Amino acid sequence: MSLTIGVDVGGTKIAAGVVDEKGVIGQRVRRTTPSEDPAAIVATIVAVINDLADGHEVDAVGVGSAGFVDSGRSKVMFAPNLAWRDVHVRDQVAEATGLPTVVENDANAAAWGEFRFGAAEDVDDMVLLTIGTGVGGGVVLGGEIYRGAHGVAGEMGHLRVVPDGHICGCGLKGCLEAYASGTALVREARTAASLPSAARILTLAGGDPQSITGPMITAAAAEGDDLAIVLLTQLARWLGEAMGSFTALFDPAVFVLGGGVSAAGDLLLAPAEEALRKQITGRGFRPEPEVRLATLGNDAGICGAADLARK
Amino acid sequence: MSLTIGVDVGGTKIAAGVVDEKGVIGQRVRRTTPSEDPAAIVATIVAVINDLADGHEVDAVGVGSAGFVDSGRSKVMFAPNLAWRDVHVRDQVAEATGLPTVVENDANAAAWGEFRFGAAEDVDDMVLLTIGTGVGGGVVLGGEIYRGAHGVAGEMGHLRVVPDGHICGCGLKGCLEAYASGTALVREARTAASLPSAARILTLAGGDPQSITGPMITAAAAEGDDLAIVLLTQLARWLGEAMGSFTALFDPAVFVLGGGVSAAGDLLLAPAEEALRKQITGRGFRPEPEVRLATLGNDAGICGAADLARK
Repeated sequence: MSLTIGVDVGGTKIAAGVVDEKGVIGQRVRRTTPSEDPAAIVATIVAVINDLADGHEVDAVGVGSAGFVDSGRSKVMFAPNLAWRDVHVRDQVAEATGLPTVVENDANAAAWGEFRFGAAEDVDDMVLLTIGTGVGGGVVLGGEIYRGAHGVAGEMGHLRVVPDGHICGCGLKGCLEAYASGTALVREARTAASLPSAARILTLAGGDPQSITGPMITAAAAEGDDLAIVLLTQLARWLGEAMGSFTALFDPAVFVLGGGVSAAGDLLLAPAEEALRKQITGRGFRPEPEVRLATLGNDAGICGAADLARK
Repeated sequence: MSLTIGVDVGGTKIAAGVVDEKGVIGQRVRRTTPSEDPAAIVATIVAVINDLADGHEVDAVGVGSAGFVDSGRSKVMFAPNLAWRDVHVRDQVAEATGLPTVVENDANAAAWGEFRFGAAEDVDDMVLLTIGTGVGGGVVLGGEIYRGAHGVAGEMGHLRVVPDGHICGCGLKGCLEAYASGTALVREARTAASLPSAARILTLAGGDPQSITGPMITAAAAEGDDLAIVLLTQLARWLGEAMGSFTALFDPAVFVLGGGVSAAGDLLLAPAEEALRKQITGRGFRPEPEVRLATLGNDAGICGAADLARK
């Protein structure tokens, strides 16, 4: 069976694995991303690949990277959390490893992973939404990743949901990411920290509102804590209402929810789906999308990038 | 040169023409739509086609229809302004005329027309926005109409731009259509009708706010009337900001603005483009879309449907 290597390059870690044709990951490697040094990031990716290629017969490499990847899938134009600016990642990695290499946006790679091996393997049109530090996403239309005219389509987190709303990491205001990300969840919890209902969350944070994290809120919600459930429900409602807009535009068969916050499971899925159903134009006169949780977790990017390398 | 017939079926009129391979329309026919009677609409389409086919050697027929067209492009599932509900338009028209027939959503057909023969013939990824009674649209991605999993993608007017905003014709609140359509333009003008600055618009309407129409506002703006310009600029700003969201999602090479309100020309285009530029995530680190006015006017649907029939 043919093997390829998938590499998932994020702002904090580089995770990679040897993947077979069915999306099963064998050997894995994980390194810290030297995110401030453009050449060191490339060198780390090359080292990881050489580690994995040593002892496996691999055919090609797929690199899923945070940031804007150009339409030729050769260079990373810009990445908010990596020092790369117009870096020709494909050629540098291919040259240093001697392996055919493809570069893809990390969320696109994850969408491809869920489409080929995960929650959406039975459909042709799907939208992945990753709810983590930010809100990312990828779009598979008619069985192909949709990249846009310039390679930067599918920035789902930058749908504007509130005019003049909360400031977003991108510099604009009112983006979905400023309402439905883990960062937004923590912001709302900190804002509520002085309320009596915040007692449980605050205890988990050792009494310091600034120490509240997303997983603490998810954990409190799983225990049945009222405020934590309200906060997650609020996030899920923004997400579901945005899915209403995405449905009008993309008409997908399936939405897949991934990323760290999706660990909340049904506490996220149920209110998101309820909000979506209320926001579908022409409801009753058109088929509706399903909403599913991602099944590959953090492996989606590795599996997707590896499969794209094969393709 | 091969000829096909394009039919554009709207809520008030059915317009059709014989079209050649270059998108040039020869003979034309136009009839009032018997919009309340499902069978009469089909009969009128058939009569129009038979009129045109009599005396021309035509190969096929393309019907662009308002409403939701199923993914098999065979039936119209629902149309807000036509009595059709789950009507198998393709088979009925093909049987009655003896000509191969395709059915397409009217905005998709218009997008295809502008893509093949009009304002966007030089690119592969374009979004058409038609600003008329409502806000419609069509999306061509990678040189193909994108229809979605169920055939109903590209409902650009039903992007939600304001939570709990103005009520939309679709029954939901805050849709782009409730802010950037001709209907919204007239609503805002009527709301402002008692202001001194509304004098010119009110004069054009014979003194009756209820008689204000979109073309009156466009005409006043062209004369330099301040309020009319403010109202058009406000509409354009909503449109441009929505294009910012569409850019994040679709990353098109070109937006094409069509529909009745686009007759305002630069009074619409310039402020829409300005608003778009301020709403592009990652500006400076990514290529940006162009914004152009449609060039085919009301013929886009006929030309597009006719070309899809050939395809």
